[in-house]
Amino acid sequence: MYDLIIIGGGPAGITAGIYAARKKINTLFLTKDFLSQITKTSEIDNWPGSPNMKGSDLALSFEKHLRKFDIEIKSEEVEKIEKKDGFLVNGKYSSKALIIATGSHPRRLNVKGESDFISKGVSFCPLCDAPFFKDKTVCVVGAGNAGYETVIDLKKYAKEVFLIEKSDKIIADKVLIDKEIKTYLNTEIVEIKGKDMVQEIVFSNGKSMPVDGVFIQIGSIPNSKVVKDFVELNERGEIKTNRETLETSEKGVFACGDVRDGGYKQVVLATGEGCLALLSAFNYLIHGN
Amino acid sequence: MYDLIIIGGGPAGITAGIYAARKKINTLFLTKDFLSQITKTSEIDNWPGSPNMKGSDLALSFEKHLRKFDIEIKSEEVEKIEKKDGFLVNGKYSSKALIIATGSHPRRLNVKGESDFISKGVSFCPLCDAPFFKDKTVCVVGAGNAGYETVIDLKKYAKEVFLIEKSDKIIADKVLIDKEIKTYLNTEIVEIKGKDMVQEIVFSNGKSMPVDGVFIQIGSIPNSKVVKDFVELNERGEIKTNRETLETSEKGVFACGDVRDGGYKQVVLATGEGCLALLSAFNYLIHGN
Repeated sequence: MYDLIIIGGGPAGITAGIYAARKKINTLFLTKDFLSQITKTSEIDNWPGSPNMKGSDLALSFEKHLRKFDIEIKSEEVEKIEKKDGFLVNGKYSSKALIIATGSHPRRLNVKGESDFISKGVSFCPLCDAPFFKDKTVCVVGAGNAGYETVIDLKKYAKEVFLIEKSDKIIADKVLIDKEIKTYLNTEIVEIKGKDMVQEIVFSNGKSMPVDGVFIQIGSIPNSKVVKDFVELNERGEIKTNRETLETSEKGVFACGDVRDGGYKQVVLATGEGCLALLSAFNYLIHGN
Repeated sequence: MYDLIIIGGGPAGITAGIYAARKKINTLFLTKDFLSQITKTSEIDNWPGSPNMKGSDLALSFEKHLRKFDIEIKSEEVEKIEKKDGFLVNGKYSSKALIIATGSHPRRLNVKGESDFISKGVSFCPLCDAPFFKDKTVCVVGAGNAGYETVIDLKKYAKEVFLIEKSDKIIADKVLIDKEIKTYLNTEIVEIKGKDMVQEIVFSNGKSMPVDGVFIQIGSIPNSKVVKDFVELNERGEIKTNRETLETSEKGVFACGDVRDGGYKQVVLATGEGCLALLSAFNYLIHGN
């Protein structure tokens, strides 16, 4: 039996792992891969001390740092967690405490063509892909903060940018709203069309519009399914946590990073939370509370 | 008038500064210097992605990252903050919001000889100085977690280590307590003596003991004096914060890093908090809450 199982190979999980190894906690580190959301970001300029890092380089430096220590790492997707003499993961690994750092993934439109054109005009990551749309016509889907922030990034490159929102409301912060941007409310995309690359979007009223790119910014979905039966989630499916300890509704189970109910998603926040979750788990293992 | 003044040149303040600059908030960054506690640590091995960093190198990389941006930095000690049309710092700089990231400093014994022998046998930083005490006799003052963690660090180098505690209690976590270490309870140091280097400690009962080093681990004091008149502090003098936003008892004033009421003091926690305080301050500046 392990004292601790850490699940998730992003910044939060890795930081928890580094602290666990240094504290010599008997730990199993489980992750399908180390391809967290940062590996999909072209450049990160807000990781303190390392300006203009490639997202993939930063992720790799985190992974290397973890592997430097004497910690057991298994490449395995976590599909099942049960409460059974502590916790039983995938029917075979037992532990007294758990840290869930499984992150999140972008919400999709779920329309025809969307999957086919990923990296061929359909993007979920403006920071990664905006530079590829120089002098192109691009639509951004979602009139929230993320949508308007995407507009800011795209305007530096694209010839034309417009915004599409399914509902009748702009829900972004006032300061972010760019009144010069053509915005279509009550507008729903039902298909993304093209040959090799995106060429056209089709709306629910049957009309269509030529575009070179579609940036989808309609939120993210926490990867919390595996614990949903025994820890409380909020209305967005994020794991509810005690803000002081990052403990979940289940004693001995801690959550950190994008999978939990924090308001902001940032690498530096996720690492801080990984550290806090680990120190809280350590405290739990010693004191039982 | 600035929108925001950030006070403090450690990891928390610098991270807040980096985020403020990238968000183009009209910000003044005030700090006497960039010599935070990490510059006094010989090696940091738990800053994700950068194993075995020198503390001073890490601090310098943070400062450089901040200076890369177009942000106004003034080298000035903050001596006075008033509530006056927002906030007035040192009688001359006005802002709508404040981030306090002034850190903490180690608590001293306040006994004769202590100041004279700093870096000559008296140390507050085991991670920095333990390697200098190879084959020496060293006493650690304070039987809390920090004291026992210092024992762990020193045992790798020193010939003999013992522990001194003024009260009648060991207050460290059980797992940390090293029963092989000679521990003197109810024992108070009244003087530290020597020639060029520490040679002897004198107790309140008049007895003395030969030692080569004295590691003082009796807590830290938050640098919160400058705001004590208008934000609430806890019993340790740390700034009380809302855990979700890091807002203090005063609207528009945020605190992050070692100066606030967090349980743990770590660089990666401080940077995460600097980010969170800034995002909360940004939210306050837009929405007024």
